[in-house]
Amino acid sequence: MKIISVDDHIVEHPNVWVDRLPREYRDAGPRVISEDGSDFWLYEGRKTVYATGISAASGRDKQDWSRDGLSFSEMVLGCHDPRARLADMDTDGVWAQLCFPTFPRFAGVRFLRGDDKKLALLCVQAYNDFIIDEWCSTNRDRYIPLGVLPLWDMSLALKELERVLALGFKSISFPELLEPLGLPTWHSGHWDPLFSAVADAGVPLSVHIGTSQFRMPVSTDAPGISADGLAAASLALLAAPMMAMVADMTFSHVFHRFPSLRIALSEGGIGWAPYLMERLDQVWDKQRLWAGLPESDLLPSELIRRHFYGCFIDDLFGLANRHAVGVDNIMIESDYPHSDSTWPLTRSTLVELMKDVPDDEVHKMVELNARRLYNFPDSEAG
Amino acid sequence: MKIISVDDHIVEHPNVWVDRLPREYRDAGPRVISEDGSDFWLYEGRKTVYATGISAASGRDKQDWSRDGLSFSEMVLGCHDPRARLADMDTDGVWAQLCFPTFPRFAGVRFLRGDDKKLALLCVQAYNDFIIDEWCSTNRDRYIPLGVLPLWDMSLALKELERVLALGFKSISFPELLEPLGLPTWHSGHWDPLFSAVADAGVPLSVHIGTSQFRMPVSTDAPGISADGLAAASLALLAAPMMAMVADMTFSHVFHRFPSLRIALSEGGIGWAPYLMERLDQVWDKQRLWAGLPESDLLPSELIRRHFYGCFIDDLFGLANRHAVGVDNIMIESDYPHSDSTWPLTRSTLVELMKDVPDDEVHKMVELNARRLYNFPDSEAG
Repeated sequence: MKIISVDDHIVEHPNVWVDRLPREYRDAGPRVISEDGSDFWLYEGRKTVYATGISAASGRDKQDWSRDGLSFSEMVLGCHDPRARLADMDTDGVWAQLCFPTFPRFAGVRFLRGDDKKLALLCVQAYNDFIIDEWCSTNRDRYIPLGVLPLWDMSLALKELERVLALGFKSISFPELLEPLGLPTWHSGHWDPLFSAVADAGVPLSVHIGTSQFRMPVSTDAPGISADGLAAASLALLAAPMMAMVADMTFSHVFHRFPSLRIALSEGGIGWAPYLMERLDQVWDKQRLWAGLPESDLLPSELIRRHFYGCFIDDLFGLANRHAVGVDNIMIESDYPHSDSTWPLTRSTLVELMKDVPDDEVHKMVELNARRLYNFPDSEAG
Repeated sequence: MKIISVDDHIVEHPNVWVDRLPREYRDAGPRVISEDGSDFWLYEGRKTVYATGISAASGRDKQDWSRDGLSFSEMVLGCHDPRARLADMDTDGVWAQLCFPTFPRFAGVRFLRGDDKKLALLCVQAYNDFIIDEWCSTNRDRYIPLGVLPLWDMSLALKELERVLALGFKSISFPELLEPLGLPTWHSGHWDPLFSAVADAGVPLSVHIGTSQFRMPVSTDAPGISADGLAAASLALLAAPMMAMVADMTFSHVFHRFPSLRIALSEGGIGWAPYLMERLDQVWDKQRLWAGLPESDLLPSELIRRHFYGCFIDDLFGLANRHAVGVDNIMIESDYPHSDSTWPLTRSTLVELMKDVPDDEVHKMVELNARRLYNFPDSEAG
């Protein structure tokens, strides 16, 4: 079996945008500066850390992990170099990866928040070009291309979607919560043209925990909490906003209108899913009349099995309950190079976790479900 | 086996406060008025519905359930009359109940928000007096007295706690999230005197979903959503803020400082617990150094098993995973007279749900765990 991990991360090298933006945008576009020995991204005059210690943790001692900034030279090559990454994947026993962006944030939220939307569109396109030309071209059999879209403008988003689909992209990174990002809701109808286009193309949306930066309400003086609300407790709870997304979408018109739309939930774990499916069925049974839910012959749990795919790093409870989740809906992830990653022990960890699971079910979860969902590699690719 | 339900609701009759407040407070204190044929509570000049259709649903046709207001005469007697309630419990096959307040809101949050804090304290005391003198005195073997406290003032809270403990109260209703109510956090140390007092008295806190009125972020245009964010999806997600509480408290100093503190999670279900316990253990393992968590020899999952009790209405997935949750930590609830209630079929529903569960485990979950946790009835009672 070839292990396909559906949630890993690229820490973009300093020249991703400098190499690709038109000359007049090179100063305002994302570039890396060094100050007092530390590297920072500079974009539209705003300075952010190059990467945090916990987002480029692989290969570094656990004692040294922190949310403080890390410079380019402090992280392992596999963070930003696609060939070094392949070598790290070999060490890890992982055949292929689907990688999310770091500086652009998941779903390209950084550019959604950019002031100059012409520049922001160029940044989105430059990132997608980097992914296909520089990262995935290293080995089209081992990298699943994941694109981002200009979420602030539907006609631009549809145009960029058409462009990246023609380039062979296999999925689009999309937010788990929309309103915290100032975007229209699932119910609004705004996203229907996009849902229609990805559903027609057979391309799933990949929805990563934390995309909206919404944090669960843990105490504002919790140990080690950051200015934006990240503490150990809110980190442990990142699946909860994803549960909210699943409930909200399942009770909307979206899946009734787009029966072939597929959504991969990235880094959300799977152990909570059977509880939520049962709870939504109960609410549907008892409360749908006063709550005005759309008419349907399908129970919420059936809609969830048709439309959502989950993945896990080391979710023993979820694995034990894989039949309640749906063995065809589960994939695995190595989360390289984040602090939650199983690297360099992903394969041996999975062997241990799955020692009592029948081979055909293991094969689905570690490889076949991802190949089917992402249509990877397809006949055009490679 | 005698079934003990640890989450039910009293819809207070119109005279609970009128009967008990000093004469000068009878106008400003809670009383019921009728306008255009509908009943409303009036408290400090503010008008609220007497009860919503879904909070007094028992005995009414599901077609007629709604969040609209219901008048006194429209609800079944068991909502507000302790003798009629006992008859309804007999029909339901339920021996005993622990009942939460309705007009005061869970944990007495209505009075926390009152303008005149002298009146608010009198309202808290009047409610507690009503519970012990009028409601539970009907049958001290079948009603577990649950009190509320003046949460806005620690010395008043400790004084009222002492008073109600002397009256035989078995538990205190407490919020699941504090900051949304403008209260100090678990970490602040503010609550330590209260935690110390209830831990010493062996009295658990009963924490009901929705107490803080924090809603999970579902779309603001979700079907049937109310002004305060209640829709089918956010109703289905009411366990999520409770998950946040469990994570936040477990990563605080509280359980290390008060090793005999016990917390009952009311109406939260149990199916999500094993996932969260495992997730907290993983975060503890990987992230505790940078996150600055308190030193401990106990894993988060062990702390959770020592300190938290859950209950369920009809959580099949949780029941199937009762050993992962902890059979000693599970109780049941009938949620009378809310729309989620199993009344009048609680006993037969439990028989069906638990048909494959060994009798000794059934006995723990339906009766013995509640008797132990709430010390009910004790030698002084009855």
